[in-house]
Amino acid sequence: MHSPQFTADVLSDGMRERDFTVGDVPGVLWSPVSGADRAPLILMGHGGGTHKKHAAMSGRARLLVRGCGFHVAVIDAPGHGDRPRTAHDEAEIAELYRARAAGEPEGPVVVRYNAHLADLAVPEWRATLDALQALPEIGADGPVGFYGINMGTAIGVPFVAAEPRVTAAVFGQHWPDALAAHARRITVPVEFALQWDDEHIPREAGLALFDAFASKEKTLHANAGRHKELPRFEADSAVRFFARHFGRTVPSPA
Amino acid sequence: MHSPQFTADVLSDGMRERDFTVGDVPGVLWSPVSGADRAPLILMGHGGGTHKKHAAMSGRARLLVRGCGFHVAVIDAPGHGDRPRTAHDEAEIAELYRARAAGEPEGPVVVRYNAHLADLAVPEWRATLDALQALPEIGADGPVGFYGINMGTAIGVPFVAAEPRVTAAVFGQHWPDALAAHARRITVPVEFALQWDDEHIPREAGLALFDAFASKEKTLHANAGRHKELPRFEADSAVRFFARHFGRTVPSPA
Repeated sequence: MHSPQFTADVLSDGMRERDFTVGDVPGVLWSPVSGADRAPLILMGHGGGTHKKHAAMSGRARLLVRGCGFHVAVIDAPGHGDRPRTAHDEAEIAELYRARAAGEPEGPVVVRYNAHLADLAVPEWRATLDALQALPEIGADGPVGFYGINMGTAIGVPFVAAEPRVTAAVFGQHWPDALAAHARRITVPVEFALQWDDEHIPREAGLALFDAFASKEKTLHANAGRHKELPRFEADSAVRFFARHFGRTVPSPA
Repeated sequence: MHSPQFTADVLSDGMRERDFTVGDVPGVLWSPVSGADRAPLILMGHGGGTHKKHAAMSGRARLLVRGCGFHVAVIDAPGHGDRPRTAHDEAEIAELYRARAAGEPEGPVVVRYNAHLADLAVPEWRATLDALQALPEIGADGPVGFYGINMGTAIGVPFVAAEPRVTAAVFGQHWPDALAAHARRITVPVEFALQWDDEHIPREAGLALFDAFASKEKTLHANAGRHKELPRFEADSAVRFFARHFGRTVPSPA
């Protein structure tokens, strides 16, 4: 087992931020500034069209690292962030924009494209987890969580279904078509967010994906509002979910 | 406006606990031990067959009073706790037990009986709120929340629909039949809990009641499990909901 190749090591927003690569895949590892004690690791999947250091990622990392003392890692999905786009990526993105401009449902394109990305990304996530667990401050037997909404769910559900090292997960906002079969193999605690008035994902589709998880402990958080209006307090809730399962204290908000 | 008539004033579990009556209705007011500063008031409705000081009530009060510095009041519902049962109460309870023993759905009996109790209880709650707001440590213009699950929702939804002083509410676990019309008049922030595998309340019925609230901010928390398996962490969530809306800090769990 080889550690990740670190390419940068800075302080950022009260966290230690290390850029790394595992093979060709670039990632970021955020850790507490103080102390080399072992701590749980949360893997986070970014949304479609964004990247590993998007504000949604660094903001959630800040809550998990500074609030709970966890490590947080994000890798760029295939075709995203610092990674090259293939002709297939370009064609699918063009098709998504065409569907949007034509007022057609974007679900069929997103479901198909994200399933393709998940096929590529699941082995990348497994190799990344192998490498991160070789670090002494993480270790091979510590708790591992996964947190990803939208495309982070499209990749995370097949990953968690295939990966017994992940023992708690936060997902949300995707269609069941390509994911329900994987969700039926997931038995770890799950928190799942959807938007009650999502203009892209029909309500019944979101509820069907939540229903598919085999987890004895699973919680649906459905909020009034459209697709992009997922409330900020759901990130606080996800942090508490991991703190509850991994035994860390969450500080009170100011 | 007259204050409630206090009949006892003790320390209990780190809270000041005052028994009171407003007219013929007995209640309990839990308050912080220290300080006479004004603080928000949370009205809590107890479940069917229980009473104002049931462990579920005092436990939630402890979180709200000791955690947030709020006042919490509960009154006995008609036919419950220290209040007399009428012949109608006895007949409905007998019918509920008969339906249960016969393996029939209990929904029709619960919906009908709870709607009757709500007709009686809504004016009692309004008079109780009038009286409590005459206390200097609560006041007439401070924030007021309502928190009630099961029968607490059956009474609370019509109460909140009729009562503009309540500006945030936590409900859950009831049928839409008698409540959806009231819920459509409620516009304040709502958190609503249901059990995904409720053996009494069909999933579609629970979702329909959540859907009926007119609130721009509303959140559904649906947990895997049967009717009586509502997770303890939903009480923590309700406390954070009120803290978020009423501007109080929630201390970290130990």
